[in-house]
Amino acid sequence: MTNTTHINTETHALAAYEQHGVLKPLTFNRRQLRDKDVAVRILYAGVCHTDIHNIKNEANRPFSYPLVPGHEIMGEVTAVGPSVTTVSVGDAVLIGVQVDSCRRCERCKEHLEVYCAEFSSTYGTKDPIDGTQNHGGFSTMYVADEYFVFKMPNGMDGSRAAPLMCAGATVYSPLKQYEIGPGKTVGVIGIGGLGHLAVKYARAMGAHVVAFTTSPGKIEEIKKLGAHDVVLSEDAAQMQARVGTIDLMIDTISSSYAVDPYMWTVKFDGVYCSVGAGARLDVDPIVLMLGRRKLTSSAGAGSDEIREMLEFSAKHDVYPEVEMIKPDYLNTALERLEKNDVRFRFVIDMTKGI
Amino acid sequence: MTNTTHINTETHALAAYEQHGVLKPLTFNRRQLRDKDVAVRILYAGVCHTDIHNIKNEANRPFSYPLVPGHEIMGEVTAVGPSVTTVSVGDAVLIGVQVDSCRRCERCKEHLEVYCAEFSSTYGTKDPIDGTQNHGGFSTMYVADEYFVFKMPNGMDGSRAAPLMCAGATVYSPLKQYEIGPGKTVGVIGIGGLGHLAVKYARAMGAHVVAFTTSPGKIEEIKKLGAHDVVLSEDAAQMQARVGTIDLMIDTISSSYAVDPYMWTVKFDGVYCSVGAGARLDVDPIVLMLGRRKLTSSAGAGSDEIREMLEFSAKHDVYPEVEMIKPDYLNTALERLEKNDVRFRFVIDMTKGI
Repeated sequence: MTNTTHINTETHALAAYEQHGVLKPLTFNRRQLRDKDVAVRILYAGVCHTDIHNIKNEANRPFSYPLVPGHEIMGEVTAVGPSVTTVSVGDAVLIGVQVDSCRRCERCKEHLEVYCAEFSSTYGTKDPIDGTQNHGGFSTMYVADEYFVFKMPNGMDGSRAAPLMCAGATVYSPLKQYEIGPGKTVGVIGIGGLGHLAVKYARAMGAHVVAFTTSPGKIEEIKKLGAHDVVLSEDAAQMQARVGTIDLMIDTISSSYAVDPYMWTVKFDGVYCSVGAGARLDVDPIVLMLGRRKLTSSAGAGSDEIREMLEFSAKHDVYPEVEMIKPDYLNTALERLEKNDVRFRFVIDMTKGI
Repeated sequence: MTNTTHINTETHALAAYEQHGVLKPLTFNRRQLRDKDVAVRILYAGVCHTDIHNIKNEANRPFSYPLVPGHEIMGEVTAVGPSVTTVSVGDAVLIGVQVDSCRRCERCKEHLEVYCAEFSSTYGTKDPIDGTQNHGGFSTMYVADEYFVFKMPNGMDGSRAAPLMCAGATVYSPLKQYEIGPGKTVGVIGIGGLGHLAVKYARAMGAHVVAFTTSPGKIEEIKKLGAHDVVLSEDAAQMQARVGTIDLMIDTISSSYAVDPYMWTVKFDGVYCSVGAGARLDVDPIVLMLGRRKLTSSAGAGSDEIREMLEFSAKHDVYPEVEMIKPDYLNTALERLEKNDVRFRFVIDMTKGI
């Protein structure tokens, strides 16, 4: 085992220095390894819409600049703390949106750590031990407790695996929670980073998949992703024809929009799960009432679900559609992402150097 | 058996003649009995907040004036059609919000007829056979198919039973759907006609009951109804202390209000059921997300649930608190109801004559 007490933790990153600025280089040192820590050389980092929200600090979170975004991380273990048992140097691993939780509460005991009140994000929250603000995956190295470092299954394509850790986990969890499989109809609203993975997972689980889009130009592409049926959601007749047909709706829209027309398409006792985490949801109680429809949300996947998702993805060949970029293209990529001009996920090849 | 072919169906009622008018007398004839019809002499009729909405036609329903409201009916069978098997002349019976459905659809087969697309209301909808607009329970007589005429359990107090058919059914159904019993905590928002029955049912089912009110003056009264805990919902500290404690929230508010503070009090995976059927519901997706909370609604009870509710009410002595009025007080009662000035349900004693 590598000597873990004095490793080189110099890290090169791309950071936001102000609310509306572009990302610029930052060099800093990750912490020295604690007993259960794993050092990871980052190979690939996915770019999530949430990164834009955070760069602009739209939610008024109490972090300070510089802020290094990035919470979809694939890399290789370069060193481990003395008590680490689950991964070894050289292993391919993945890190997602969360790097700590209390491990004692009801949610942690259920392995739904993403709902723990002491949730620590992969970036922008203070480390509970040393109090420093942690930096994310748009960087060359990460250090995290092994509990939140997931070994990549054998045979998985690491260059496309990183986005599974946020976009994938976010849609996989509700699909499993609501027991999606053959005989069920899944609707997906918004076929972007999250939505296109929802289509792929739901299809791989055996469900009938209905994709809702506002883009006529995307129809053929969305069918290739696996949707059985693509509905233009601005066409009232098409929407009317789907009233009461969806068992589980996965809504990935994060901007403000009219919920009711989509809600009508949900079946009696069906579930409408909004994972966009954006604007407020405004719904007519009568639409809920007439079908006992449920409006809910989901924060992502717990550790057991993440392991299951990774195995499922490897087995069923479920990966995001990726546009691979170099670090020096990241600011342009963020601009394009803001305009939804990506099919369907940017991944930064960190081996190109910052 | 009474000869059912030519009974006297002259009915005296109180009707709205225009959108903003007071109720005035109306005399009309109920239909002659069909094979499965039951004629009921109305003894008591409950006054529901929905009656006010309908008198003003706030939902732009396609009915015409005069409109006879009333959908909480207790009475005595005076005649039956030749094929009626479930009730006999002289039986004490109850009629609620619904008098017809298709009997063939999935919902009807599940005995959740209140969700049938061919739902006929007790008043203000057209009879599917003769096309006339039916009149409600603020009248001396009703004629309905036996399927929607419920025999009152032995020992039940008929003078207080009518409001169970709407207010009671509306809150009983979600309490049963979400399997409320010992070990569960039920919240009730708005302690009026529906809310006070939700408190009583939840208590009788063995749950811990938390009532939310904006009226400090009602606290002691609400405790007497059966609430273990009464929360002043405009007191932020009291609300904060209940975050994450409610398994099932029964929200009876029909006006516009801030959902989020109440939603926070719901547990992880808990349910917030809005039965007020009023203003739009506007919620922060983050509150749903952080607890996988579900916002839903319920249209009322199906026929099996109504029978179960009546047996439960008789057995556990669950009745509304009633202010008994004479028909000539009805307009004043409606004015008071609009100001929530009633504890907790007006019932019209129809034996006093219109």
